[in-house]
Amino acid sequence: MGWTLGQLADRVGGTVAGDERREVSGIRSLESAESEHLSFVAGAKHLAAARRSRAGALLVARGAGDLAADRIAVDDVMAALAELLALLHPRARPESGIHPTAVLGEGCVIEPSASVGPYVVLGRSVHVAAGAALGPHAVVGERCEIGEGSVLHAHVVLYDGVRVGPRSVIHAGTILGADGFGYLATAEGHRKIPQVGGVEIGSDVEIGALSAVDRATLDRTVVGSGTKIDNLVQVAHNVRIGRNVVVCGQAGVGGSASLEDGVVLAGQVGVIDHAVVGAGARVAAKSAVLSSLAPGAVAAGIPALPIGQWRRQQSLLRRLAAIWRRLRALERRLGAGDREEGDE
Amino acid sequence: MGWTLGQLADRVGGTVAGDERREVSGIRSLESAESEHLSFVAGAKHLAAARRSRAGALLVARGAGDLAADRIAVDDVMAALAELLALLHPRARPESGIHPTAVLGEGCVIEPSASVGPYVVLGRSVHVAAGAALGPHAVVGERCEIGEGSVLHAHVVLYDGVRVGPRSVIHAGTILGADGFGYLATAEGHRKIPQVGGVEIGSDVEIGALSAVDRATLDRTVVGSGTKIDNLVQVAHNVRIGRNVVVCGQAGVGGSASLEDGVVLAGQVGVIDHAVVGAGARVAAKSAVLSSLAPGAVAAGIPALPIGQWRRQQSLLRRLAAIWRRLRALERRLGAGDREEGDE
Amino acid sequence: MGWTLGQLADRVGGTVAGDERREVSGIRSLESAESEHLSFVAGAKHLAAARRSRAGALLVARGAGDLAADRIAVDDVMAALAELLALLHPRARPESGIHPTAVLGEGCVIEPSASVGPYVVLGRSVHVAAGAALGPHAVVGERCEIGEGSVLHAHVVLYDGVRVGPRSVIHAGTILGADGFGYLATAEGHRKIPQVGGVEIGSDVEIGALSAVDRATLDRTVVGSGTKIDNLVQVAHNVRIGRNVVVCGQAGVGGSASLEDGVVLAGQVGVIDHAVVGAGARVAAKSAVLSSLAPGAVAAGIPALPIGQWRRQQSLLRRLAAIWRRLRALERRLGAGDREEGDE
Repeated sequence: MGWTLGQLADRVGGTVAGDERREVSGIRSLESAESEHLSFVAGAKHLAAARRSRAGALLVARGAGDLAADRIAVDDVMAALAELLALLHPRARPESGIHPTAVLGEGCVIEPSASVGPYVVLGRSVHVAAGAALGPHAVVGERCEIGEGSVLHAHVVLYDGVRVGPRSVIHAGTILGADGFGYLATAEGHRKIPQVGGVEIGSDVEIGALSAVDRATLDRTVVGSGTKIDNLVQVAHNVRIGRNVVVCGQAGVGGSASLEDGVVLAGQVGVIDHAVVGAGARVAAKSAVLSSLAPGAVAAGIPALPIGQWRRQQSLLRRLAAIWRRLRALERRLGAGDREEGDE
Repeated sequence: MGWTLGQLADRVGGTVAGDERREVSGIRSLESAESEHLSFVAGAKHLAAARRSRAGALLVARGAGDLAADRIAVDDVMAALAELLALLHPRARPESGIHPTAVLGEGCVIEPSASVGPYVVLGRSVHVAAGAALGPHAVVGERCEIGEGSVLHAHVVLYDGVRVGPRSVIHAGTILGADGFGYLATAEGHRKIPQVGGVEIGSDVEIGALSAVDRATLDRTVVGSGTKIDNLVQVAHNVRIGRNVVVCGQAGVGGSASLEDGVVLAGQVGVIDHAVVGAGARVAAKSAVLSSLAPGAVAAGIPALPIGQWRRQQSLLRRLAAIWRRLRALERRLGAGDREEGDE
Repeated sequence: MGWTLGQLADRVGGTVAGDERREVSGIRSLESAESEHLSFVAGAKHLAAARRSRAGALLVARGAGDLAADRIAVDDVMAALAELLALLHPRARPESGIHPTAVLGEGCVIEPSASVGPYVVLGRSVHVAAGAALGPHAVVGERCEIGEGSVLHAHVVLYDGVRVGPRSVIHAGTILGADGFGYLATAEGHRKIPQVGGVEIGSDVEIGALSAVDRATLDRTVVGSGTKIDNLVQVAHNVRIGRNVVVCGQAGVGGSASLEDGVVLAGQVGVIDHAVVGAGARVAAKSAVLSSLAPGAVAAGIPALPIGQWRRQQSLLRRLAAIWRRLRALERRLGAGDREEGDE
């Protein structure tokens, strides 16, 4: 069931050094690969590990250092790796058709090539496009639309009126379209503002496990095409996320905030309600965006500052003990008798 | 299927300016409304957008600025909006009765007007009160009680012995009553302390998607009536949350902590184990409450400080570069030769 | 259905003071216990509450202060409490056997003493070992292995190729083996790197509700034996967690990071990609580990510093207003005219 190095090199525009007919049957890291595996060298610092590896063959950059193993040399190792992973480790597609245990509301349209798994529950008038797959226990509300080739993994829940574009993947346990968190403070307590809008997920989006994208109060919460969202991420109501945005694990985006095209939020970042994060801006892990960021900004800290300012601030914080000592030295020299609580 | 402005004005004690018989069929934002929609003007800063809007009619504050559109003038726009959203966008109630696929343990009592959806699984002796609704795939453990008119959305899980009061709403994927995180450190590793208490949710509570409220070690973890909890929130074992508390997305409350009545935690806040957050206290986004807060406190920062102190500290941090420069200027002037590593 | 104090004392090597034949039927806190309950005194500061308690009997440390109630004196109150909680509040084991609604793929092996609950869905070639229990709606992918006596609570999802060792407990809604968050930036957008590795959970592990452990890119994401993970925790792809590690609620561990044996992460901690947290290191709540930590380190802050440094920094921050004031006093004294924007 293997592939020869020659076949693989053809796929990725590479050149074989060594035995073109050597076969490999999977891809592993340098540390865990055995003779039946291909491994890869992502950069010069991995050359020593590559020489120690038991891998049967290596994927390397053209002109990479001296290596004895049979290998495929390519222009871009990571791009070739992504291609070959998909080739050597294909993921089984679920069978087309509707599992007999699925419960469908009236007026649902399931294209014949789509797959609806065991115990899926669909509300009325759901459309599942060609090639889409709904995993076990997925629950999809009324009037939802699942685009061509999209995948809802096990236990995904879509409330009513959620649209998912083509070729998007929603991982297990993620909830799209729960009510936004909107209340009016009144003398009798918090009064709910009904959340009657929807959610719109573009094409080629991927959302990790256990994330939540709330429905809009009135219009739509939007996740743009090509955007990738990690696990345990909160996207509040009325948020607008642009195209090709990256939101890492446990980040949260407050109500009515915008992330323009190409923004990157690292892990555990928070963006406050109504903030606009400009196109291409990047925010470091654990930062809190408490006001809007200009396009292209690179920000860090709580509250988030331009990264240069944040670094300077960190450097000054490390110097704080010296500042205190030197200040007191000056005072002593001048006989300034400003002793006070907290001095030592 | 529309409502006339006259009818709507009657509902909210408003006054129509313009055509009382104009009909609208839904509510949209100023930007997305069309001629069949009502929109609203939340404040003076939205007047320009209101004049540009294609909305068929507007909900406005009495005495709001000059507007040409047909409109309903009210004392409190947001309160009227909440009322009209519920009227024009009613949410379909699931049908009463028990879906044939539901699996019920012995001794369950399901009131006839309650709804038990597809693939719901109930343990023994569960009580579902009148008008309550359990969404698809909800799993409810032994001896749980679901109060009158309460809703468990799809995929909610209640472990054994959880009580939910009347008119409460638990959104999809939320887990109530999983074991608290309690272990004894021993020479052989972490030994589990069995978590044998329960969870009690009051009336008129709303809990968002994918939140977790752990069962108590011995007694009960409590969420008081009227409290609203957002998505992805962690409430640890033995926590006591009072009435009308607001906990925003991704906040976490440590074991045995208390949030007294009316507390507000903004997004991503953490409250440490055993802390008491006094009645009406408010904590800014991303803050860490590392010790108890007095009633009415307004706190921010890591660790959380009174907000005035926090602002002063932020202001001083922005001045740190100036402090450093001016300190060195004084030293130079005095010929203080205290050069050291880190100077520049 | 009660136990006598004499019987309970025998179980935990304790000594009864008072009536050995008194019966108790459950364990409660000092505040909520009634005459049929045993309660416990965890330390001297609880003596006053113990004297006020209505508990029928008390579990106390040998030599604890003067108490009138019938009681069991032991060497280690918390260890005895853990033992007696399990004895007096046994958790019902689900019945062995496969619920008729479970959907099993080809080639599954379910040991006769295992329990497979309603609406469980298993892919092909799953092995469920003796005494293991799969709760309602659990979804388990192809080739997964569930070890002897392990429990997957309701709504747990395992993607293909996940292994869970013996005596481990996975709480409701947790997702093991979703795709890691790996993309290549290209001119056309983010290109997915297929995630073809697995997840390996050791023995005696407990993972809370709604946590996510992603599958590795190539090899395995590993959670070592005896490790305890709380709710809403993110464990990214390729992470290696050692033995007897503790990860508290809402913490996140970035891709390819390592937590060595005995590490403790408090709540809401973040560990950046590729960092190594050395054996026995402890990280305070809300901290951000932005670079590796030495074994035994105790760290706090964003970025995390050795705890002594962090405390010193916090102390200096509280002194910042004084530094500023005293610096300006020196300037005034020297006639330094360095007035600038930001002065007051």
